[in-house]
Amino acid sequence: MFGDKMRLKNVKGASTRIASSPIIIQNPIEFKGKYKDLFGNDNPIYLEIGMGKGDFIIQNALKYPNINFIGIEKYDSVIVRALDKIEAYGKLDNLKLIRIDALNINQIFNHEISLMYLNFSDPWPKNRHEHRRLTSRNFLEKYDDIFLNNNHIIQKTDNRHFFEYSLISYVNYNYKIEALSLNLYQDDLKDNIASEYEKKFVAKGVNIYKIEVFKEN
Amino acid sequence: MFGDKMRLKNVKGASTRIASSPIIIQNPIEFKGKYKDLFGNDNPIYLEIGMGKGDFIIQNALKYPNINFIGIEKYDSVIVRALDKIEAYGKLDNLKLIRIDALNINQIFNHEISLMYLNFSDPWPKNRHEHRRLTSRNFLEKYDDIFLNNNHIIQKTDNRHFFEYSLISYVNYNYKIEALSLNLYQDDLKDNIASEYEKKFVAKGVNIYKIEVFKEN
Repeated sequence: MFGDKMRLKNVKGASTRIASSPIIIQNPIEFKGKYKDLFGNDNPIYLEIGMGKGDFIIQNALKYPNINFIGIEKYDSVIVRALDKIEAYGKLDNLKLIRIDALNINQIFNHEISLMYLNFSDPWPKNRHEHRRLTSRNFLEKYDDIFLNNNHIIQKTDNRHFFEYSLISYVNYNYKIEALSLNLYQDDLKDNIASEYEKKFVAKGVNIYKIEVFKEN
Repeated sequence: MFGDKMRLKNVKGASTRIASSPIIIQNPIEFKGKYKDLFGNDNPIYLEIGMGKGDFIIQNALKYPNINFIGIEKYDSVIVRALDKIEAYGKLDNLKLIRIDALNINQIFNHEISLMYLNFSDPWPKNRHEHRRLTSRNFLEKYDDIFLNNNHIIQKTDNRHFFEYSLISYVNYNYKIEALSLNLYQDDLKDNIASEYEKKFVAKGVNIYKIEVFKEN
């Protein structure tokens, strides 16, 4: 679904540009537990893991100026595309990016995230890769450390088996279901913000699944 | 989805025939807590609520002689169709029917059901009819009284909104998900037994949803 080619394509000067951009949090470990200082306010922090080229998180940051957004992405070549877009909007004080593998997420956040978005994450369809899925127990355990009060995740995907897997994984980890759509584009789309992948898939008539889950901590 | 016309059609002599059939349990309240005496063995009892014309439960009873099956249905006109089919197979010692409204289910069973099937139940799409849905909290509370050890329900439906509703309802009532398919006929169909409605829907290319849920008591 992702096309590793796109993801891993070498973008010339990407790493230099990322290392010098004020939009990228260069030393996230230093801000663990202190991201409110970085943003300079007490607004809630929403996180997107695997933000890709950034359409979803940028549109959110523009629409909700009183929420702070952090996008996580591990591939330089994708982050620089997001940087291009953010810079085109000028300064967005409520949006920062971090270049990190999500496996290390609980090393950089400590009970400070209010909501997490997972948009069209890699489904890792092979059984032996289950632990890499962002909704596996492996990751759900890490998320327990990063949420401020209650765990709150909103996920969209076009992959049926990954969606079935995620749903079971959440429920078996004691999440409750806040909302669910098994065919998002046949439902009320009020407030929906589409990622790049979502726009592409929907144009092809692909079914989009969405779930919102919640767990008291 | 059901066509009330079919359901409520008056079948001549239906009530007389039901009242005299040995396949129908005429006085279910008397067997509350004692269905094993009725079957004359300790085999597990599986229940189908709203068994309709009986294809599903009859095929199950034939395939699994060491399980006792009870089908519940409230409409005479439908029960007599099931009777026709059962009689055509001769005697099926492990299959009985009860003519009752599922609302009264906990008046006729007391901790003796091992598994419950809900096949293409009426989705009652209007909000004001929510309490009539067989997966509403109203019914889930009643089911707590009828299961032997743990609650165990397998549901199939073609109705997306009813499926979404049911899933959330189970999870909020502390059921865990054992298995899930959001497109049954694209998955492994080993051991699937189709109801009349299911066959009709699948022939039309309709998507079938299936869920298996479990709750410790």
